[in-house]
Amino acid sequence: MEQVTNKQIVLKHYVNGFPKETDMLLNDSSTINLNLPHGSSNAVLVKNLYLSCDPYMRARMSPSIGSYIDSFTLGSPLSGYGVAKVIDSGHSNFKKGDFVWGGTGWEEYSIINAPETLFKIEHTDVPLSYYSGILGMHGMTAYAGFYEVCAPKKGEYVFVSAAVGAVGQLVGQFAKLSGCYVVGSAGTKEKVDLLKNKFGFDEAFNYKEEQDLDAALKRYFPNGIDIYFDNVGGKMLEAVLSNIRLHGRIAACGMVSQYNLEQWEGVRNLSHIITKSVRMQGFVVTRYYHMYPKYLEMIIPLIKQGKIIYIEDIAEGLESAPAALVGLYSGKNVGKQVVVVARE
Amino acid sequence: MEQVTNKQIVLKHYVNGFPKETDMLLNDSSTINLNLPHGSSNAVLVKNLYLSCDPYMRARMSPSIGSYIDSFTLGSPLSGYGVAKVIDSGHSNFKKGDFVWGGTGWEEYSIINAPETLFKIEHTDVPLSYYSGILGMHGMTAYAGFYEVCAPKKGEYVFVSAAVGAVGQLVGQFAKLSGCYVVGSAGTKEKVDLLKNKFGFDEAFNYKEEQDLDAALKRYFPNGIDIYFDNVGGKMLEAVLSNIRLHGRIAACGMVSQYNLEQWEGVRNLSHIITKSVRMQGFVVTRYYHMYPKYLEMIIPLIKQGKIIYIEDIAEGLESAPAALVGLYSGKNVGKQVVVVARE
Repeated sequence: MEQVTNKQIVLKHYVNGFPKETDMLLNDSSTINLNLPHGSSNAVLVKNLYLSCDPYMRARMSPSIGSYIDSFTLGSPLSGYGVAKVIDSGHSNFKKGDFVWGGTGWEEYSIINAPETLFKIEHTDVPLSYYSGILGMHGMTAYAGFYEVCAPKKGEYVFVSAAVGAVGQLVGQFAKLSGCYVVGSAGTKEKVDLLKNKFGFDEAFNYKEEQDLDAALKRYFPNGIDIYFDNVGGKMLEAVLSNIRLHGRIAACGMVSQYNLEQWEGVRNLSHIITKSVRMQGFVVTRYYHMYPKYLEMIIPLIKQGKIIYIEDIAEGLESAPAALVGLYSGKNVGKQVVVVARE
Repeated sequence: MEQVTNKQIVLKHYVNGFPKETDMLLNDSSTINLNLPHGSSNAVLVKNLYLSCDPYMRARMSPSIGSYIDSFTLGSPLSGYGVAKVIDSGHSNFKKGDFVWGGTGWEEYSIINAPETLFKIEHTDVPLSYYSGILGMHGMTAYAGFYEVCAPKKGEYVFVSAAVGAVGQLVGQFAKLSGCYVVGSAGTKEKVDLLKNKFGFDEAFNYKEEQDLDAALKRYFPNGIDIYFDNVGGKMLEAVLSNIRLHGRIAACGMVSQYNLEQWEGVRNLSHIITKSVRMQGFVVTRYYHMYPKYLEMIIPLIKQGKIIYIEDIAEGLESAPAALVGLYSGKNVGKQVVVVARE
């Protein structure tokens, strides 16, 4: 029985307003046995390699969120999406040495009691970290959200907020592949440059430099917006509604502008939904996971041919995870925020 | 050439806040020739019989609405949906004596320059006034909005606001015919009684007597709401979002609670659209008019068999039209508000 230290990132207390690094702590006194107990049916023991930092995790740092996911348990490691290697397996679908992605803990090793929720990684000729983003939940979110929820047509006008984020950067590139005109918003000049010069958006702007979001959108979309992929909610959503076209579609994916507010901002112009026959559609990516093989078939060649660009912001070491997570809410990360726990 | 007086209801000035009777005036100095000029291609001259008073008309009383319909022209008769009789026709589809419904003027006689937008009335064994409501635009709104937009399933929980209105009363009855559980809200005890005792809603409540709409909805929907047919917007929409179920659907049909406000109320909890995978869909009924024959085939037998109840609030005479229209916004009408200009 090999017993080792299992460092963990633990939530100290529930959070009000913006989360801080000090809301979490590194627990280095926990240990784990690297063999599953005999007869531990179904469970899988994994070594965590890459962890994904995601805006939605803020909701789980509040005591009660009335949502589709639970709050984190105080004193226990946080959890989220990640890439891991199987160390020991009590489940017939997984064997030692397999790489997997899915829900795991913010710790060095995790026991996954419902490994049916894990995806086995079959293609290892792309960076493994990609399965914590473009080849995992985020890629599927962009794929299902854009192609299924937004139902794009060639020539349509597409707007993406938080466009350098894990999902946004992909949505914009999918829109270009679909023959759409696409504009992205982001919060720094560096990100705006990336959108235009690296990700191939037609235009991009820094929302922090715009006094009047409605005027900004009118400048970039003189004919209005057909599709809005909404990662931020709030005032930007309001500005989009004022510029939406007949039969416009809004994929409601995230509302990161609101997560840390005591009182959420109200959206006052929902009447455009009626007068423009708009469809605003929330979606949860898990409902589309049956399309994952089809997605991989599309995306892996595009990555290899350089037709899809993907940018990660890599934080080294589990210790860096709290700062990486907190940085999301001030827009510090450039690209998909990943924490490396171990490289294999 | 028979020249007659043509009384008209004219908009005097654009309106701020709640409309008043004095925003309109009766013009009795206009005249009209009861024969179309020779060679007046396509136009149809009609005698107006029944006019429909509708909440959406408030938007047209403002100077600029940025909407799918234009503002009323000052000094000209208002326009809206109505039932009329053809007096003279320059269009091959219509002949003298035909009954029609569609867009017409708030006056005794109107020249319709685009009669392709009119529907010829084929079934006259039901009250003609019904074509200004249940057998016209409002019926189609309820039909398309409920069956097409909401996509109901047997056993689902349905909530309808402004439920005694022309559209609401029908939606509730369609929901019952579909095997749903349906609750309606209205603004007086009399209307609540009608909903429960006449229209067959499972439950109904007076929203004006509820301090806390969220608590009221939790009382009537302990398991949450699958379908919300929204005629009012604002705070009720917010309360519904807090009680919506996974994969809930919201048909955005009207926002009468907001039309007279200087500053529209903000809806602060749109995040439920994401977390519950909600579809909120605006729609404009004209897009569904191809289904009108199918609708009539369904609804006329139901009316004749007494399986669908329809209540009109009839105002007598064109003179009464301003008061009838204004009354909508204080909820004075009980049932679909109709103005009788003439009976044939």
